[in-house]
Amino acid sequence: MSEKREAFVTLATNDSYAVGAFVLGNSLRNVKTTRELVVLITDEVTHHYRYRLRHVFDIVKLVDPFDSGDEKHLRLLGRPDLGITLTKLHCWRLTEFSKAVFLDADTLVIGNIDDLFTRPELSAAPDVGWPDCFNSGVFVYKPSMQTYQTIVAFALQFGSFDGGDQGLLNEFFNTWATSDINTHLPFTYNMTATSAYWYAPALNRFSKDIKVVHFIGALKPWHHLYNKDTGHLDLNEKFQEGQQPFLTNYVQRWWEIYTASVNKLPSEVSMQSPVVL
Amino acid sequence: MSEKREAFVTLATNDSYAVGAFVLGNSLRNVKTTRELVVLITDEVTHHYRYRLRHVFDIVKLVDPFDSGDEKHLRLLGRPDLGITLTKLHCWRLTEFSKAVFLDADTLVIGNIDDLFTRPELSAAPDVGWPDCFNSGVFVYKPSMQTYQTIVAFALQFGSFDGGDQGLLNEFFNTWATSDINTHLPFTYNMTATSAYWYAPALNRFSKDIKVVHFIGALKPWHHLYNKDTGHLDLNEKFQEGQQPFLTNYVQRWWEIYTASVNKLPSEVSMQSPVVL
Ligand SMILES: O=c1ccn([C@@H]2O[C@H](COP(=O)(O)OP(=O)(O)O)[C@@H](O)[C@H]2O)c(=O)[nH]1
Ligand SMILES: O=c1ccn([C@@H]2O[C@H](COP(=O)(O)OP(=O)(O)O)[C@@H](O)[C@H]2O)c(=O)[nH]1
Ligand SMILES: [Mn+2]
Ligand SMILES: [Mn+2]
Repeated sequence: MSEKREAFVTLATNDSYAVGAFVLGNSLRNVKTTRELVVLITDEVTHHYRYRLRHVFDIVKLVDPFDSGDEKHLRLLGRPDLGITLTKLHCWRLTEFSKAVFLDADTLVIGNIDDLFTRPELSAAPDVGWPDCFNSGVFVYKPSMQTYQTIVAFALQFGSFDGGDQGLLNEFFNTWATSDINTHLPFTYNMTATSAYWYAPALNRFSKDIKVVHFIGALKPWHHLYNKDTGHLDLNEKFQEGQQPFLTNYVQRWWEIYTASVNKLPSEVSMQSPVVL
Repeated sequence: MSEKREAFVTLATNDSYAVGAFVLGNSLRNVKTTRELVVLITDEVTHHYRYRLRHVFDIVKLVDPFDSGDEKHLRLLGRPDLGITLTKLHCWRLTEFSKAVFLDADTLVIGNIDDLFTRPELSAAPDVGWPDCFNSGVFVYKPSMQTYQTIVAFALQFGSFDGGDQGLLNEFFNTWATSDINTHLPFTYNMTATSAYWYAPALNRFSKDIKVVHFIGALKPWHHLYNKDTGHLDLNEKFQEGQQPFLTNYVQRWWEIYTASVNKLPSEVSMQSPVVL
């Protein structure tokens, strides 16, 4: 009987996101996942970062970039860079796995989430912007060439209402909000708390349950400055004030994992100066 | 066979919220609801406003104020006024109705929502701040003295994690996020889009389905200035810029309904100058 393989999968199309993927992979090792780790990369990721990724991921797989090129819709979000996230669709082609969990490269895992593999396709957590849509930064799915081809065909025919993977996947898996409560992951599995109506009491009440922090938006943890000797975090000035007291802790945590992970690398890698982002 | 009675219920503990309730009641009449309209008021609501409310609601019911007095938690939200919302609990005492829908006085109904009465207790839409909590501005419930007493006892024993009714009701109906998808109202039945991560594409995609707009936060429609002769809306300067293009339309709609509703009142009422809020 062949063993059932399951994997956590992420994506990096450039070195910036490769840093994110590197930290994410290490954060998954820290919580002692028993599943395989896969990172999809495109040609743009430099040799230096491929090398780093190979130290933490079981599989580093080169894929073709896939761009929605749909400028009109992306402008609505003020995020012309999201088109590239359609490259995510390649994750369905990992058919050596019977079940997989996709995680954005800007997520950080702080608690074991191996229980996600009991969930059906497509399971995801609500998006805070429009909570009848799921956030596509964390989702459980079933690799399948057939599904891959169907979604690609769907994308080519209908596009994506936000020009990125979230609009596309929500339109494709369009019964998520109404059909099966088991496909609703707890918000603590994809905590994207950047809401203006800051619901601080809920955060206090539920923060102990948070398992995955997702740094959505244009400003990522790697856009801040961190002094690895003093542990001092120098926040990017664009960082919204309202978010600071809470998110700062997680940005700090991200940098601590980054530093520890780099220290664990064989010296010929860690001696190289970090990529300027 | 006795007829099954069902009602929409709201609450106003002062004249400011009574204006909201007045507009809400009229907005429900505009969409031709077939259900009864009930407003709970406290002693503070002036004669003038009680009179207005009686013109649109079938029942204007005086109840005792009920305050959480839980300053510590409320300060977290920067909203010391929310304690009063525990007065909402009185809605469970309306046992002449077999099913009811509670609506905050700061909601505006723009499409018929009578289908809500097929939903079980407790049905509500996700809160954008923490979407595994429901927003308690719109909920379907079953009036019952037993439930009323149980929730009051629960409130006295455990308090509320946010000091208001939302924290309390989420703790009491604490399987909402995980147990029955039918208790998840579409977000379009309680659209509280004030999120910082403005998901404009979803709004574009789904705005045609919006049935209830909920003006959450400290700034309510009645805090803006409106010239009923020119139809010009003069927005309160605290109104966040990012929200303007979209929410402004709904604030305008609120004022149009307000103006039309006041015009429909018998002249001895409409001749009185509006209450300064
Ligand atoms: O230039 C890019 C943009 C995105 N991504 C991948 O696509 C995901 C989704 O994009 P992002 O996280 O920036 O979007 P957000 O979560 O902020 O909406 C990232 O986490 C990466 O895995 C990438 O590899 N290169
Ligand atoms: O001083 C108050 C505060 C609140 N309310 C009622 O409680 C509801 C909830 O409060 P609010 O809508 O201000 O809270 P938000 O939705 O902004 O969180 C209101 O809509 C009113 O029905 C009231 O009658 N008097
Ligand atoms: Mn992301
Ligand atoms: Mn409200």
